[in-house]
Amino acid sequence: MVADAQLANFQPLSPLRFLERSAEVFPDKLAVICGERNLTYRDLARETTRVARALLASGVGRGDRVAYLCPNVAELLIAHFAVPLAGAVLVAINVRLAPQEVAFICQHSGARLLVVDEELLPAGAPAEDLGGVREVIVVGDPAAARDGAMPHTGYREFCARGRLEPLPWEVADEFETISLNYTSGTTGAPKGVAYTHRGAYLNALGEVIHSEHSSASVYLWTLPMFHCNGWCTPWGVTAVGGTHVCLRAVRPDAVWRMIDEHGVTHMNGAPAVMTAIARAPEAHSLERPLVVTTAGAAPSPTLIAELERLGARVVHVYGLTEVYGPYSVCEWQPDWPQLPPEERARKLARQGVGMLIAERMRVVDEQMQDVPADGVTMGEIVMRGNDVMKGYFRDEDATANAFAGGWFHSGDLGVMHPDGYVELLDRAKDIVISGGENISTVEVEQALLSHPAVADVAVIGVPSERWGERPKAFVLLCEGASADERELIDHVRSRIAHFKAPDAIEFLPELPRTSTGKVQKHELRARERAAQSRPVAG
Amino acid sequence: MVADAQLANFQPLSPLRFLERSAEVFPDKLAVICGERNLTYRDLARETTRVARALLASGVGRGDRVAYLCPNVAELLIAHFAVPLAGAVLVAINVRLAPQEVAFICQHSGARLLVVDEELLPAGAPAEDLGGVREVIVVGDPAAARDGAMPHTGYREFCARGRLEPLPWEVADEFETISLNYTSGTTGAPKGVAYTHRGAYLNALGEVIHSEHSSASVYLWTLPMFHCNGWCTPWGVTAVGGTHVCLRAVRPDAVWRMIDEHGVTHMNGAPAVMTAIARAPEAHSLERPLVVTTAGAAPSPTLIAELERLGARVVHVYGLTEVYGPYSVCEWQPDWPQLPPEERARKLARQGVGMLIAERMRVVDEQMQDVPADGVTMGEIVMRGNDVMKGYFRDEDATANAFAGGWFHSGDLGVMHPDGYVELLDRAKDIVISGGENISTVEVEQALLSHPAVADVAVIGVPSERWGERPKAFVLLCEGASADERELIDHVRSRIAHFKAPDAIEFLPELPRTSTGKVQKHELRARERAAQSRPVAG
Repeated sequence: MVADAQLANFQPLSPLRFLERSAEVFPDKLAVICGERNLTYRDLARETTRVARALLASGVGRGDRVAYLCPNVAELLIAHFAVPLAGAVLVAINVRLAPQEVAFICQHSGARLLVVDEELLPAGAPAEDLGGVREVIVVGDPAAARDGAMPHTGYREFCARGRLEPLPWEVADEFETISLNYTSGTTGAPKGVAYTHRGAYLNALGEVIHSEHSSASVYLWTLPMFHCNGWCTPWGVTAVGGTHVCLRAVRPDAVWRMIDEHGVTHMNGAPAVMTAIARAPEAHSLERPLVVTTAGAAPSPTLIAELERLGARVVHVYGLTEVYGPYSVCEWQPDWPQLPPEERARKLARQGVGMLIAERMRVVDEQMQDVPADGVTMGEIVMRGNDVMKGYFRDEDATANAFAGGWFHSGDLGVMHPDGYVELLDRAKDIVISGGENISTVEVEQALLSHPAVADVAVIGVPSERWGERPKAFVLLCEGASADERELIDHVRSRIAHFKAPDAIEFLPELPRTSTGKVQKHELRARERAAQSRPVAG
Repeated sequence: MVADAQLANFQPLSPLRFLERSAEVFPDKLAVICGERNLTYRDLARETTRVARALLASGVGRGDRVAYLCPNVAELLIAHFAVPLAGAVLVAINVRLAPQEVAFICQHSGARLLVVDEELLPAGAPAEDLGGVREVIVVGDPAAARDGAMPHTGYREFCARGRLEPLPWEVADEFETISLNYTSGTTGAPKGVAYTHRGAYLNALGEVIHSEHSSASVYLWTLPMFHCNGWCTPWGVTAVGGTHVCLRAVRPDAVWRMIDEHGVTHMNGAPAVMTAIARAPEAHSLERPLVVTTAGAAPSPTLIAELERLGARVVHVYGLTEVYGPYSVCEWQPDWPQLPPEERARKLARQGVGMLIAERMRVVDEQMQDVPADGVTMGEIVMRGNDVMKGYFRDEDATANAFAGGWFHSGDLGVMHPDGYVELLDRAKDIVISGGENISTVEVEQALLSHPAVADVAVIGVPSERWGERPKAFVLLCEGASADERELIDHVRSRIAHFKAPDAIEFLPELPRTSTGKVQKHELRARERAAQSRPVAG
């Protein structure tokens, strides 16, 4: 009886169920649009089974890692289901990494197989560097392989190994690892963040609720799928039976074409990406309501206003690789729609509160005590719950450090506002300490972004004999706009405390960003150090 | 380290978290409207803590049962959180039960405390019948107590025992029992269906997604909260920070007043209840979109059309007490909006497919093999997964029977359509077998309901010498409408197979229904038996 009861009333949580269900409920509904290819949910489930079977036939065993190096194409979406369906662990690698970084991840994860898009084949390292990888599968034209690369197999040939015999859409234990996501870590070796089936399931449901997805969702893949498994959206959009629209490269003109052609209702991405889209020449009023879920940096009031003007609703979420992508959401309050746009945007620019499926997000001092909820006292943002990673793969020390005291330490600095909303001020390492006072580079950046001529900005601390450090800004101006250093510094001083205004502004044609939209401040710091050490002529 | 990791990345699923979060995120938002009383989420969390503390101070211990006999008032909503917050188990009793039935449930559940609304005090059994109940708490005026009832305490006095010292909004084990729901069982003693924290959490999220709840939800309590814990809606609406509008008695005029006054966006209930609302003299076009989630019987095409005309969207769900209320949902397909109303309504009247958080619903023969998906072959509807009950409280045999073969046996008969949608034909015991052919009383009822003069109907089998059984219909006509037996039988014959048409129709001024809207066919059968055994005069 107990055995029957367990069978009847317990099922390990797994996103695999989402595809099983949508294939049953919406077999003929469009699941994936990828270039000229359309897949229904029946097709998606069939291709997933085929790939899972091909993985098994290729010697991939339970718990083995399978690496993918692909842009946002159907093959990578399929992998989010096929790899766990085969009982294996997906390692989706950042496509902008250098060959030696790809090699490191293959080695560290111990991946058995590497699936590479033909476009990225040159990024593939020589065979001898790939650790335990026994085979390289090429999506697209295998002839694109460069000399010296490992012998490889075409994706079609690989798939042909897979019979279509069904596999159970389930996992034995919901705490099993579903994927490893290597942090882009601006310093140090990347760490492999392990996600569980349970965490992925719950995080996907949280995003469905907070971004208000339904079976009518048409989701455009502007966010890289390799980034925190696309914030679990491959699983969430599939859960509701929505349509995925793939996109190889996020060019604003292509984005607008997709929005118009397919009636896109949802997209996710960093504010920098959304700014480029909102300011594209093709930008126009939306015919269908669009939800833009954004994270990675606070959306500026300007961006929020621009998106709202086009007819989009902004959902601001915040998180890290270690928490399955988004952990918090800046929940709208009933009185916000009545606020003046500027004030509303300021409220919405905060990182907010734990999602419905998450626990309370805290801001703590070094003794793990909550800082006062005064919007001023800075502390570290810590999190816990089912959407916190299982740990760093094969790195017990880093895991223990990250979980010290039973909370995940984000390394992000923030304040707690009186309304319980957290605002991120800076990465711990990015804060500028000037004359003993903390200056949040994010705050200075927001002040600069509110100037109409400023398109993009990054602030770092530079050494100062008198103050220890002083903020310096790197600015990209809007096309056709002009502003000089003095004007911008005055603008900042008119908005925030004078001592926080940068002493210097350097204009750049582009800011160095990671593939996920984060400014690489370490590059700006390196550049600055190089400039300072250069002997002054004369 | 392992201990830290467990703390950081695992939290037992519990609906308690939903109230904790909404009180933090939406402290000033309206949580409950109950008559003249308004509670914000801060108030709701505070009152919940107060009641939980009062329970503990009254000697309620971990796992003890606490019974409530209340209509849809704030106190019962609070109990859905306060009782589990105290570590106890909620037993919400059907307010229409007779005193001896209430006594049976108190005895069987071993409840320590009984909380009764003053209106229902007469239903309270004498003290000596209440088993282990040590104290009766009266909500409202304790002077309403009748002679002979147990000595009782006023709710206010009871609450005053509770300090406001916080309790942790969590449970140690997500498989702990959160509530017992006694089946209204048309025959035999009621059984206590045990729900877990995990099941309640997941079912609540499923309903949030399928009924599209958000923090803008204004939910009117037309469904009894004592019925399957109101389909887990106390937890779901609280999860998103929506507003609960309580309602002591579901009178159509009061419902329409609430809809207009509070801008109701969602309500749940049986089709009979929704029909009464849709046909009330107060019915009018809705100003705000309204989602009507209905279950308990298939909504008739007529009802669906009527609700759509008013501006409401119908979500049809199906389930039983044993599966936390709704288990399946009749998901809309992309092409349904284009179908002729009649055909669309027929599709929507089916019970559908497992919810997103459920497993696949099956229709099986006696060997547990799936019947052909032909829409014709009848079998038993079986279910499994996280939203299937833990079991029947203190009834291992019934639990073992219900879970035979690792699936929950609903006792409902249905067919599987080629599109994978299940259609309920009848309760196993309600089917009419005429000349060896099965006749679904639901099908005959639907045919009768499509006649404009028919307001309500119930079909049962009556003994027939020639055929074994023949269907007989009991009909309630619409106010002011008329139709005779012949006309209605002809109408049925024009729509379904002739042998399925009833041989006799009896007109009644009202149909006997359970408090949850189900027709009590056993009463009609008893009435029929009595009529048959009466000697015919002359």
